[in-house]
Parts: sequence; C-alpha cells; structure tokens
Amino acid sequence: MAMTDAVHMHAALSLARRGLGQTAPNPSVGCVIVKDGRVVGRGTTAPGGRPHAEVVALNAAGEAARGATAYVTLEPCSFAGKSGACTEALISAGIKRVVVGATDPHPKVNGAGIARLRAAGIEVTEGVLRAECEAVTEGFAMVQRLGRPLVRLKLATTLDGRIATAKGESQWITGPEARRAVHAMRGRHDAVLAGVGTVLADDPELTCRLDGFRAAPLVRIVVDSHLRTPLLSKLVRGAAQHPLWILHRDGADKLRAKALESVGVKLIQLPPSTIGVDLVAGMQALAKHGLTRVMVEGGASIASSMLRARLVDRLSWFHAPAVMGGDGWPGAQAFGITKLEDMPRFRAVSRQQWGQDVLTNFRKVV
Amino acid sequence: MAMTDAVHMHAALSLARRGLGQTAPNPSVGCVIVKDGRVVGRGTTAPGGRPHAEVVALNAAGEAARGATAYVTLEPCSFAGKSGACTEALISAGIKRVVVGATDPHPKVNGAGIARLRAAGIEVTEGVLRAECEAVTEGFAMVQRLGRPLVRLKLATTLDGRIATAKGESQWITGPEARRAVHAMRGRHDAVLAGVGTVLADDPELTCRLDGFRAAPLVRIVVDSHLRTPLLSKLVRGAAQHPLWILHRDGADKLRAKALESVGVKLIQLPPSTIGVDLVAGMQALAKHGLTRVMVEGGASIASSMLRARLVDRLSWFHAPAVMGGDGWPGAQAFGITKLEDMPRFRAVSRQQWGQDVLTNFRKVV
Repeated sequence: MAMTDAVHMHAALSLARRGLGQTAPNPSVGCVIVKDGRVVGRGTTAPGGRPHAEVVALNAAGEAARGATAYVTLEPCSFAGKSGACTEALISAGIKRVVVGATDPHPKVNGAGIARLRAAGIEVTEGVLRAECEAVTEGFAMVQRLGRPLVRLKLATTLDGRIATAKGESQWITGPEARRAVHAMRGRHDAVLAGVGTVLADDPELTCRLDGFRAAPLVRIVVDSHLRTPLLSKLVRGAAQHPLWILHRDGADKLRAKALESVGVKLIQLPPSTIGVDLVAGMQALAKHGLTRVMVEGGASIASSMLRARLVDRLSWFHAPAVMGGDGWPGAQAFGITKLEDMPRFRAVSRQQWGQDVLTNFRKVV
Repeated sequence: MAMTDAVHMHAALSLARRGLGQTAPNPSVGCVIVKDGRVVGRGTTAPGGRPHAEVVALNAAGEAARGATAYVTLEPCSFAGKSGACTEALISAGIKRVVVGATDPHPKVNGAGIARLRAAGIEVTEGVLRAECEAVTEGFAMVQRLGRPLVRLKLATTLDGRIATAKGESQWITGPEARRAVHAMRGRHDAVLAGVGTVLADDPELTCRLDGFRAAPLVRIVVDSHLRTPLLSKLVRGAAQHPLWILHRDGADKLRAKALESVGVKLIQLPPSTIGVDLVAGMQALAKHGLTRVMVEGGASIASSMLRARLVDRLSWFHAPAVMGGDGWPGAQAFGITKLEDMPRFRAVSRQQWGQDVLTNFRKVV
C-alpha cells in the first residue's frame, strides 16, 4: 500500500515538474487519480496557474473519480470559496481518499485544506515523498516564507573558473549540449535575469529556444540602474513577444524610461545601493510581481552581487574540461571575501554530463 | 575461458596498482599464477623495482608452478641474461601458458619477451585488459617513448578556481577527506614536485603521511632556479629521511649549493628559460634520474608553467563547493592563453566524492 502510494506520487511529481516555470505566481502541482489500481485522471497546473492540477485531473476522470484516490504533490487549496477551491472540487467529485506530498505553505492554507477534506469524511495520508514534493514547490514556498523567489545562479566556466580569455573571447567555453541544457533550465524558471553589462556586451535574447518546451511566456529581467539597455537591443525589440522587466534606481533618464515603457517594457524602481540597486529589495519586488523561480545568468558582476547579498539559493555550475589561467575573466567578480569561513558554501545535490562538460547542481548551505 | 582470463588479470592489476610509485625506474607489474583454477602464486614488483612480479609469484608457487598459467600485466622482460630475465624464470619453472596485458614498450623487449616464451613452447595470449594494463604502466611507457615521466598536476580550488583569499588565507579550501586523498595520491607517484614560491610560503614536507602506505622513499622535488630553498626548511631538514632534489639553473650561489649538497640534497642544473628553468629539459632530466611518475603540487606559478609547457598529462582537480570571487588567488596563473582553441583541454576519466569535495581525474586531450 505504502509502495503503491509512492509509485503514484512519483507519477504526480513528474506531472508537477512539467509545469515548472509556467504557473507563477501559483506553484506547479501534479495530480493523479487512481481507482481500483487504474489511473483514471492526470493533471498539471495549467500555464499561467489556472486551472489547478486537481481540477484538470478530475475533469479527465469524470464519473470515474467517485470512490477513487487522488494523489497531489501539494496540499489542495481551501480558500477560493466554495466554487473555486480544490478541496470542494475533490469533495463534490466523490473522492474517497487523498494522498498529499507537501503541506501548502500559503498562510491561508497551511493544513486547512487537509482539515477541510477530513471534515468532509475523506481519508487523508500526508507526507508521501514529502522532500521531493517540497523541492518541486520550493519557489512558491520561498515567496510565502521569505517574500522573495527562489534564486538559481547559473555559471559556465573552465575548471579554473574563467568565462573569457584576456582578450574577451567567450564563445564558447562549454559545448552545444551544455548550452541546450541551459535553455531547458531557463524553461523551468519563471524568469531569467542578467546585468546590463552582459546586455551591452553580448546583446542576448534570454529566451528558451527549445521548440515546444513551454507555453507560458518567460520573463526576461535586466538589472540596469541607469536604464542603459539599448532601445535597439534584442531584448527590447522582442519585448512585445517576451516580457521584459528592468530593475533600475531613481534618477534614470525620464525620456528613456518613457521610450522603454512605450514598447512594453516594465520598469521597476528599487532603492539604490553603493554598487547599483538593492538586490534584496529587487527580489522582494519580483515576488510582489508574481515571480517564484528566478534564474540568474551573466555576467560576473551580477553573479558576485547576488553572492554578496547571500541571495543564491541554488547554484548550477557547468565546468568545461579546460584550463585558461589567471588572466582569463573570472566567472564571479570579487565580493569581499577575506576569510575562508565567510565564503558562501553549497552542497552538491546532482550532477549531469553534457557532452564534455559537467553540470553540478548545488543547494545553499545555511 | 576468456572470462576467467579477465578475472585473473583483474587480480594481477590490483597487485600492480599496489606498487605504483615505488618501483621506479621499473614499472609496477602484477602477476598471478593459476593452476587447475586455483591461485598458487601472487606477486608485485618489489619496492625499488627488484625482484620483478613474476619472480615473486613463482617463488610463492614453488613446484605448483609446473603446468600452471601465469597472468602478467606487462610482457615479461627478456634481456637480463639467462639468470635474470623473467622469460627464463617462467620457462624453467615449467609454466605452460602466459596471459599478457600490455606489451613492454622498452626498446629491448617490445614483443621479444612474448616471442621468447613462444619459442620455448609456451602458449601466450596477448592483450587481455590491455587498456587497464597500459594505464598502470603508463609512466614507464612515457619514459620509453618520450624520454620523460608521466606528469600529473593536482589542484584543489573553489568552484571558481581559487586557492586563497585576497588576504592569503588558504588553510583549508578542501576538507580533511580530500587532503587524505592527496597523501594517497602522492603515495602512488615516484616524486612530488613544487615551486620554490610554495616552499617559501608554506614550508611543506611533501611526504606521504599515511601509515604503511608505501615502503619506498618518495622523492621531493623543488623547482628553484636560484637555490632560494631555505636550509632550515622542513624539506631540507628532512632530506636524510626523504630524498630531496632541486632543479636549478646556472649562476646559483656556490656556497648555498655546497651547503645543500652537504646535507644530501641532489642538485640538478637545467638550461634557463625566460621564466626560470626549462621544464621540458627538467622532466627529461628526471627520467634520466630514474623517475616515471611525477605529481605536481603547488603553487599557481608552477601549475601555469607546466600547463604552458604542455607537460600536464593527467589532471586531478579537487573542487570544494564554495565560491570565493575574483579577488581570490587563482589556482593557475596566467600562461598566455588568448584564444579559446589554445586552452589545454582534458577528458574526465573518473570522479570521486571526498567529504564535501569532488575530485575529477582527467587525461590530456591530444
């Protein structure tokens, strides 16, 4: 029985992972409905966050849901009023048992969904594959708990941490397989963020260029204190198709601001800091604007600013099997580490080979 | 039968690996003698290189060797005259069949050993686990083919390639497990080499401090153009117990040279180069002095000089899961890479987790 629960929860987790990066401000949830050992309905939170996974799965199951068991990676929501709440949908569909992975950290739910199901006579089992289910909803949980999205820093360097030669040649340190993996990684985040230096140097698009990989738009974000992002950059020219947000500080040129806004760029003004904008306030602002998972890419300046602000929750490091030497450009600029014990430290959680390059994924050690 | 051959050759490989670093100028060879499916003798080349593995195993087998099969990781030697050659020992012991891994690259053998066995009526099977057997004798093979030892560069850095903070704090980037693994790595090489900068900064011992790990002395080598190695350094004070060699250039202080030699330090004069000594000539000199496997450790200057000279055949890189930023000291100094295609590139062959740190072993891509 417990084994069967784990098998079905694994299937629900796969469904939840499909929606990663496409459901903000909602979490991506997976739901599997099982009756007499047969799967009768599957659901993932839809792009944009509605409908929820439970409703998608119940619709697929139809009458077969009566007397069935529902597996959900996250506790069903209970606060949307009788018509909208997933708890009510499960109750009225005649679901007999609900198996839950993670508890919903949203202050309006946080156990209330489970209590509501039990009050309606439904058997509830909690905490099946809890750690995996929490990992898949961690961006949403961070917004609830810390008021900011999950931040992943991606770096691609030589073994000695370099991203370009002394003369500035940087294309390409890693191979095509690793670069495709980066596009897939972008696809599983709500937004990709870069510093204006990278925009001026590389004119990137910061889109997920893998066909059919995601339906929801990927937000591109530039940290650009003084609105130096060129109006003719690929980012600005593509702003009608792919949302572009710029984090800036006060005192930026009003005409430039107007021009950017006129082509659809969203400007978010932040408090200043000695080195640009206050990135902690910046991340809080992104959560208020509905983001839960932000991937930071390029360049060495924004990487070091994020590390300095202790904002890097997840680190994804591609190492190419080559050595450049000490005059190459560093992947992370100086950020004031004078004692070893002050270094931000991480714990490796997974490792993948992409062509000749190795990607290691880390979690922050707190 | 082929499967049985592989099993016994695996055992012979394990024996060969035990002698790594202790048999120079000879290769470390493993030998297993099998009769009627039972192992009747085992041998590894003895510390110092004599007796050879075949003789050790034959002595263990005694009369049981008659009619048995001998598994040897390297072709038996044939040139030492009737009394000393392993071919003659195998023939006179009555061995019926010999299974060989790698062919001996020594110009005086190179197939002649196998031919001699066959001429004496012994059945010979060649090339069983050839790649593994070649890997275990590669230092010896490089001396035969290129006139220099195998060079392994070991580095231990943060993810961004740093070995010390801006203020010079470097103890410890990696954890105790990784540092123990470094001692074991030293133990499998004939010599450990460092630059004089590291000697002046850290006063290291460069010994293998794992009890019982090796019987033969480990040679310590300092690249020190102008003989700046202090007479009171741990290296010089320990020269009576552990051999110490210094690679220098002409013009060094004669009194210092005399003082060093008087306490047992071996001085090897090399042609100068613009940045110190000619390291290619240096490696050739080490081969002439009997070394086959050299491990390069510390610091960033010697690492970059070795990389610049394209002398790094194997790379062993420990990455600690931490980020230091661009003002940390680089693990490899600049060595003139201006184009990405000019970077020395490597291929990962194995990976090990040591505590929180990851060791990746690479081979040079040629």
